[in-house]
Amino acid sequence: MTEGPVGRPVAELDTPALLIDLPAFERNLAAMRDLAARAGIAYRPHAKAHKSPVVAGLQQAHGARGVCCAKLGEAEALADGGVADVLITGEVVGAPKLRRLVALARRARVAVVADHPDGVAALSGAATSAGITLDVLVEVDVGQGRCGTPPGAPAVALAERVARSPGLRFRGFQGYHGAIQMLADFGRRAAEVRAAAARLGETAEAARKAGLPVEVLTGGGTGTAALDVAAGVLTELQPGSYVFMDTNYAAIAWDQAGAPPPFARALSVRATVVSRPARERAVVDAGLKALSSDGGLPAPKDAPGAAFAFGGDEHGILRFDGACPLDLGAQVELYPSHCDTTVNLHDRFFAVRGGVVEAVWEITGRGRTQ
Amino acid sequence: MTEGPVGRPVAELDTPALLIDLPAFERNLAAMRDLAARAGIAYRPHAKAHKSPVVAGLQQAHGARGVCCAKLGEAEALADGGVADVLITGEVVGAPKLRRLVALARRARVAVVADHPDGVAALSGAATSAGITLDVLVEVDVGQGRCGTPPGAPAVALAERVARSPGLRFRGFQGYHGAIQMLADFGRRAAEVRAAAARLGETAEAARKAGLPVEVLTGGGTGTAALDVAAGVLTELQPGSYVFMDTNYAAIAWDQAGAPPPFARALSVRATVVSRPARERAVVDAGLKALSSDGGLPAPKDAPGAAFAFGGDEHGILRFDGACPLDLGAQVELYPSHCDTTVNLHDRFFAVRGGVVEAVWEITGRGRTQ
Repeated sequence: MTEGPVGRPVAELDTPALLIDLPAFERNLAAMRDLAARAGIAYRPHAKAHKSPVVAGLQQAHGARGVCCAKLGEAEALADGGVADVLITGEVVGAPKLRRLVALARRARVAVVADHPDGVAALSGAATSAGITLDVLVEVDVGQGRCGTPPGAPAVALAERVARSPGLRFRGFQGYHGAIQMLADFGRRAAEVRAAAARLGETAEAARKAGLPVEVLTGGGTGTAALDVAAGVLTELQPGSYVFMDTNYAAIAWDQAGAPPPFARALSVRATVVSRPARERAVVDAGLKALSSDGGLPAPKDAPGAAFAFGGDEHGILRFDGACPLDLGAQVELYPSHCDTTVNLHDRFFAVRGGVVEAVWEITGRGRTQ
Repeated sequence: MTEGPVGRPVAELDTPALLIDLPAFERNLAAMRDLAARAGIAYRPHAKAHKSPVVAGLQQAHGARGVCCAKLGEAEALADGGVADVLITGEVVGAPKLRRLVALARRARVAVVADHPDGVAALSGAATSAGITLDVLVEVDVGQGRCGTPPGAPAVALAERVARSPGLRFRGFQGYHGAIQMLADFGRRAAEVRAAAARLGETAEAARKAGLPVEVLTGGGTGTAALDVAAGVLTELQPGSYVFMDTNYAAIAWDQAGAPPPFARALSVRATVVSRPARERAVVDAGLKALSSDGGLPAPKDAPGAAFAFGGDEHGILRFDGACPLDLGAQVELYPSHCDTTVNLHDRFFAVRGGVVEAVWEITGRGRTQ
């Protein structure tokens, strides 16, 4: 299965199949490398978007400083695939996970975040029991209202607690504001980035005044990367979706003039027409179990005049403005609205160039929510 | 991983974890057995809800006639797990799938549906090349507007084509109306079921008049099961969600008086509180990658006064009406809004009775969209 399709036309693939358009993907890798290089800032791409050690390796070959993972299980899968430097961007809580965390820290460079004294105590206990030292960043809520300590004094107090906890090494702060990544109003997005950066910057300054070394200020994302850089506070960017983009990220304005982002849609789901029940309608074999719906509807890539609607778990309905030009058995491609959750529905990528499958990459972090 | 938790308290499980409440699940199995038995009708549960050979086996032990699968890949996974009788309820189209279909038909009893002359020709070609006979049902669009031939003459014409195609055996008609399963207005749901049944019944009568043997009329679902039986047309019910239920199905009225369905919510996702950032807020480790959102929001099972909101791919936010009673590390359970798409995000079920994990069942059909 994983070797057979290489070198064969994409039209011979069984469907639904998750495709990477290699030329677009490679331009995305280069564009983020260049953005970070021009700004003189490190970047640590978020692997929750791709969950693939191969993609992580290509990002590191483009100058990335390790990767971010959302979950410990994702980090384990990437470490198994050879990724040697991982920041886990979500709090790691609970005895089973702490056992796995210290085991992982023995075979890869791992940093974790914390936002609660009890969490810090548990990390310290696990690290000292194992006889290791864990890198810890304090997560600051810079505006999203999800996890994180408040900025300023509470974050500094927690950082001091980390710094004096046996087995832990305080590295810096994480401040990620996911809710503003896709703000349609560019001016408002820019203002929110400045406000978030100010909260993180003030926290770092207060920590330094308290005598703490603050090496890393990490955050930001695909939708705000240029603004994050311009704000001048972060030392490390965490963009994820830029490698693939999706219809939601591709639709945002990149600057005040409304230019599109410098990243192209490189991910699609290839599907087959399995029913032609009416003149203007085709039904394809990709539904809610092949394309996520949390970000809205997928967009047909190569079916002009067609509108997509979900037809249940395993069906997608293409309605044409006029006669449907697709015969039974025809294949179409659909751009996901949200790449992260769509990737998580699949076991492998088919990397395609010029209509030919060039490689098959297993999504080894798929389903690793623990 | 799959043996370790058995016999241990559920509170020791790593999270997110997909749980089956065995007493509720067993009552559901019995309730559908009894409903079908009282009506004297066969039932073939839809395995797209659980994708598990173990659950399929329990359904057969409760009198089910084989199972339905949405996709060929799902059918292969169940056959690998010992399920010997499968109806694939979606059209199987394309050369790679036809090769797999005839291979599957050699090791299990398989029936497929068709709704297009080209599809019938392809099935016939594959079957004759392989020297086998395939059971085929003609899919009729009884009102959903997805796949299927129109009822009446077009369906009969396609059935005649199946009947005279080498390598194929015409078995009957499938008529499933997914769009009415959860109609909140009971009277309207009942009327739609009667209309759909009439379309299927007239089609069957016309086919019999044309000299075709119509052994099977299959369709219906969890939300309409009692109404499907009352309509008196189907010979075989296809309920799926009844084994687990979910917040959407549990909310529908079962009769004119508004009684709840005779099935209980037996599926939940167990999650851990990983952040306690504010007095009224807890953040758990289950987001869009552990709980599907296509059917709406999950509902907290055991956290009175809490409202759930998705906090991205890997986070769920519980907002309490007052002080949050959950400490860091506490565990909560969430009922999915849509069981099918939530099950598809997980690799295994943890079957629980009295707070103890009694079994671990692999979801071997997970991700089998091809």
